[in-house]
Amino acid sequence: MKLTFSPTSPFARKVRIAAIELGLIDRIELVTTSMVPGQFNETYSRDVNPLRKLPALILDDGTTLVDSEIIVEYLDELAGRKLFPAAGVARWRVKAEHAMTQGMLDAMLLCRYEKMLRPKEFYWSTWYDDQWERAWQGLAWFEARPEILTRPLDIVQIALVCVLGYADLRFADCGWRKAFPGLAAFNETMMTRESIKVSAPPAG
Amino acid sequence: MKLTFSPTSPFARKVRIAAIELGLIDRIELVTTSMVPGQFNETYSRDVNPLRKLPALILDDGTTLVDSEIIVEYLDELAGRKLFPAAGVARWRVKAEHAMTQGMLDAMLLCRYEKMLRPKEFYWSTWYDDQWERAWQGLAWFEARPEILTRPLDIVQIALVCVLGYADLRFADCGWRKAFPGLAAFNETMMTRESIKVSAPPAG
Repeated sequence: MKLTFSPTSPFARKVRIAAIELGLIDRIELVTTSMVPGQFNETYSRDVNPLRKLPALILDDGTTLVDSEIIVEYLDELAGRKLFPAAGVARWRVKAEHAMTQGMLDAMLLCRYEKMLRPKEFYWSTWYDDQWERAWQGLAWFEARPEILTRPLDIVQIALVCVLGYADLRFADCGWRKAFPGLAAFNETMMTRESIKVSAPPAG
Repeated sequence: MKLTFSPTSPFARKVRIAAIELGLIDRIELVTTSMVPGQFNETYSRDVNPLRKLPALILDDGTTLVDSEIIVEYLDELAGRKLFPAAGVARWRVKAEHAMTQGMLDAMLLCRYEKMLRPKEFYWSTWYDDQWERAWQGLAWFEARPEILTRPLDIVQIALVCVLGYADLRFADCGWRKAFPGLAAFNETMMTRESIKVSAPPAG
């Protein structure tokens, strides 16, 4: 299998961590790919994903799976379901919690684009503040649910580490550790895992 | 069950169509909810979804499922798996195709916000064009795969109708019918279904 990948993409990092934890990383070739909004990448658009998003998992039969949620679920099934509950309401809850982390990352990426990519004269603070507030309220949501942070390793915890790592990479001054001590302790513990350490993004 | 809902949300429309096709609509109370970026909705953020996105499905036990993908998959399982293939690579393909429609809608919503919500002086055409190109290339991707458009009803077709309906609602002059005659014919056929007709968004 091939995974289109960027070392700074939190979505790609999540897939990489999941693949390591599931014992599948040796079966996946990481294909480093650069994708910047505003720069059309015709080859990627045509051959991999018309939405030009990372990551994509290209199976050996050529099937291309897009969206990191689907990729981690696919890998989890391949490995015997270790990161998602196998069935029942527990499975739906984990999927919904995971969707929340996806939305938090989407919001943080929109903040990043608003401030760093968009020319300064077109910056709209209302938009930035609104998106940031979503990500921040998401952090508060998880802070208020310590049972999610302390249960056995699952996809929500992995995704949350990627959210926090992305906050450190792109919003180093946001102060999430001070605001959310539960998440700070959780992150410390997670950082002792090899999969989390090796996948940490390069300094911003 | 309760579904937070807006008549113009293509994501909410998809869930509604799926619920009708699955015979579950009578078990769902639609709760009309207004959500505008830049307008903080504290109650919704706290009680339903910190990301302030529509739709959310609130189960009778209080579990809140966010993200329309998860909601339709949940409803599909409840009804005995009619809109997603039950297993195997066919299931992953359908999920990836569906994720593509989600990305197309995300891109179209970003275009809508860029042009209609953001003050004109902060409009950045590079961003608009980039997002629009993603949605457009997504349409081209489906146009090139007529087998998706002609197989028995599934979640991808339902989602695609919602994409096309949203194009008509917000980008009436974009000319998708002329550019993509296969999608135009598909849409015509789909529009004869009661579920698609009753859920059509009000005129923009």
